[in-house]
Amino acid sequence: MNEQKSFMLEAVKLAGMALDNNHGGPFGAVIVKNGKIIAQGYNQVIKTNDPTAHAEILAIREASKILNTYDLGECEIYTSCEPCPMCLAACHWANIRKIYYSNTRKDAENIGFKDNLMYEELKITTNNRLTRIEIPEALEIFKKWKQKPNKIIY
Amino acid sequence: MNEQKSFMLEAVKLAGMALDNNHGGPFGAVIVKNGKIIAQGYNQVIKTNDPTAHAEILAIREASKILNTYDLGECEIYTSCEPCPMCLAACHWANIRKIYYSNTRKDAENIGFKDNLMYEELKITTNNRLTRIEIPEALEIFKKWKQKPNKIIY
Repeated sequence: MNEQKSFMLEAVKLAGMALDNNHGGPFGAVIVKNGKIIAQGYNQVIKTNDPTAHAEILAIREASKILNTYDLGECEIYTSCEPCPMCLAACHWANIRKIYYSNTRKDAENIGFKDNLMYEELKITTNNRLTRIEIPEALEIFKKWKQKPNKIIY
Repeated sequence: MNEQKSFMLEAVKLAGMALDNNHGGPFGAVIVKNGKIIAQGYNQVIKTNDPTAHAEILAIREASKILNTYDLGECEIYTSCEPCPMCLAACHWANIRKIYYSNTRKDAENIGFKDNLMYEELKITTNNRLTRIEIPEALEIFKKWKQKPNKIIY
């Protein structure tokens, strides 16, 4: 088995743990840096009652803690299933440039998860869920940020 | 000032705290249930080195902890800026049906944030960032989930 498949198998083993322990949906992920797994996660939505406790999010948070930076630009993620939009965007914010997955969003849909639907909804810019309430104070804060010296852009 | 604007102002005040304390980008959010703020958050990416520590994610995690459920279906979120895809999808997973924002993703782009670019990239289903490495063990776990009795669908 090549190295990439072995990392993927580790992610899948974690997915199995989530399933067997009833901690959450059957999803697992590992983060790799310089050819070594440095962090891992599996879905814990049910166990922790945290709707954001997806495998990738937990793995990213662990890797960031270990490396002491929000910038995981030198890392890759292996996830047992194509990331949902939350996790894909989290990879973006963490600057993870290579994302490897095995099962697809369609496979996830087939077992009852709404990843695919969510991707479709994210293409729509206006709907009855999202409502703008514009207050001038909000843009004032953005202006202050723009003028702020030595700010850290992440 | 009506109630909705006052909730939005609280979100903006939190954005100002992130800015003033150098804890992260100028973003804040509050979660409201039955007309009362039950949880809040502001961006802490810089302070905590956690790339997922956006205002909405932190507010959702706090609300879930307080209510002891991943299902925030009876809650609304007020956020100082249109949520990035990570946070919008997190609202979906948490079943938050009403999302109110003031600044737009374009406003965020104008002060250096990549929310808008990220939305564009999420529309693309294949690119050189995302690579499928299919292993049969991954789909086996999904089959086990499908067959599992009494599973919790979140």
